[in-house]
Amino acid sequence: MLELFELRGADPEILFSPYCWRVRLALAHKGLPFTGSPLRFTDKEPLACSGQNLVPVIRDGETVVNDSVAIFEYLDATYPQQPLLGDSLAANRARLLEKLTFTALRMPLLKLLVPRVYAAIDDADKDYFRTSREKALGMTLEAFADRQLGLDSFVLAVGPLEAWLKTQPYLDGEQPAGTDYLVAGLFFWAWCLGEQPWPAESAVDAWFQRILKRYEAEFGVVKRAA
Amino acid sequence: MLELFELRGADPEILFSPYCWRVRLALAHKGLPFTGSPLRFTDKEPLACSGQNLVPVIRDGETVVNDSVAIFEYLDATYPQQPLLGDSLAANRARLLEKLTFTALRMPLLKLLVPRVYAAIDDADKDYFRTSREKALGMTLEAFADRQLGLDSFVLAVGPLEAWLKTQPYLDGEQPAGTDYLVAGLFFWAWCLGEQPWPAESAVDAWFQRILKRYEAEFGVVKRAA
Repeated sequence: MLELFELRGADPEILFSPYCWRVRLALAHKGLPFTGSPLRFTDKEPLACSGQNLVPVIRDGETVVNDSVAIFEYLDATYPQQPLLGDSLAANRARLLEKLTFTALRMPLLKLLVPRVYAAIDDADKDYFRTSREKALGMTLEAFADRQLGLDSFVLAVGPLEAWLKTQPYLDGEQPAGTDYLVAGLFFWAWCLGEQPWPAESAVDAWFQRILKRYEAEFGVVKRAA
Repeated sequence: MLELFELRGADPEILFSPYCWRVRLALAHKGLPFTGSPLRFTDKEPLACSGQNLVPVIRDGETVVNDSVAIFEYLDATYPQQPLLGDSLAANRARLLEKLTFTALRMPLLKLLVPRVYAAIDDADKDYFRTSREKALGMTLEAFADRQLGLDSFVLAVGPLEAWLKTQPYLDGEQPAGTDYLVAGLFFWAWCLGEQPWPAESAVDAWFQRILKRYEAEFGVVKRAA
């Protein structure tokens, strides 16, 4: 059976990595059974088989693949049912959509979620998380975090997706596909950390709820941080 | 032969509508011969056959199609060689990419280009342009225009495309397709009005020049406003 190495909080059932959620949703989309292996940030040893040290990693028999988009490509090549990325033109566009939406949404979410991540992770991870993120951000977590700015800028950034989702149920059309999961991973990040930075009465919320309900119908209720 | 109704300035060879450029580039991509019928903003009568009054409109025998994206769909359905949008998944993503890039790039360009458009159009169009745009913008053209803000915000907005085009020659991959032309139309808008708001030594510039050179190899040098 496929194995998914993913990120966990202090509570092993709190899964919050946006990249790992992409892969969970992709595996569910294709109906591929898998076992999750939740790891702390500092549990690097099980990832050695991938030749790098970041989740998500999947192991499928002899094959090990890391990076969420590369995993989508692998899954489409190996299990062609229910395409995620589609043919080369469609796949290229999904990758560009991933870049554009990630660029627009990640920073607002990070401003909002950094304190939530820090609270959710295991004590063993706190030094690692603080040190690595403060180096990347060039400031302390506390100086970077800004809940109101994060919320305000997220609502602005999600505007074009809100307009799009007023016209059709999924980013990829009448049915969800790769673009939906690449973007929804960011929404699950917030959701599992106990936040919902998009308006409750919005097309974006209806879209997220559709994806969540499909997932939960198979895997049970997604656990959220308090 | 296909006929393209498009927008002209006081000089009938100055074609600057971003939507009309999309269609020119798409027709060139498919190798479809066409005659251009350049119209002033206020030349509405020839568009009556389309049941609305905005360019671009194409007439192909008995068929009349308006709206640049609808024209791409029509061209792919009728002339399947060299697909612009591709299959339904790829086409849906191209339309979403159009929305995201248009939302990001249009307003910066408009801030920069409004005085250029006003200078380029025929005297007969100036009242129409001022009245319709000032109503849409909720302020005078002069109050809206802001060259430096337009330039600065354009460079910011184009950042994700710059990063993407550092990895491959076209937005759609190794060869240009629909997404390239949907976005490039906005660049031709600026270019034909005598502006180049992207940095000269950039991946975005190299991409634009590739598309421009392919077009000019067939149609001759694109005329620009002074």
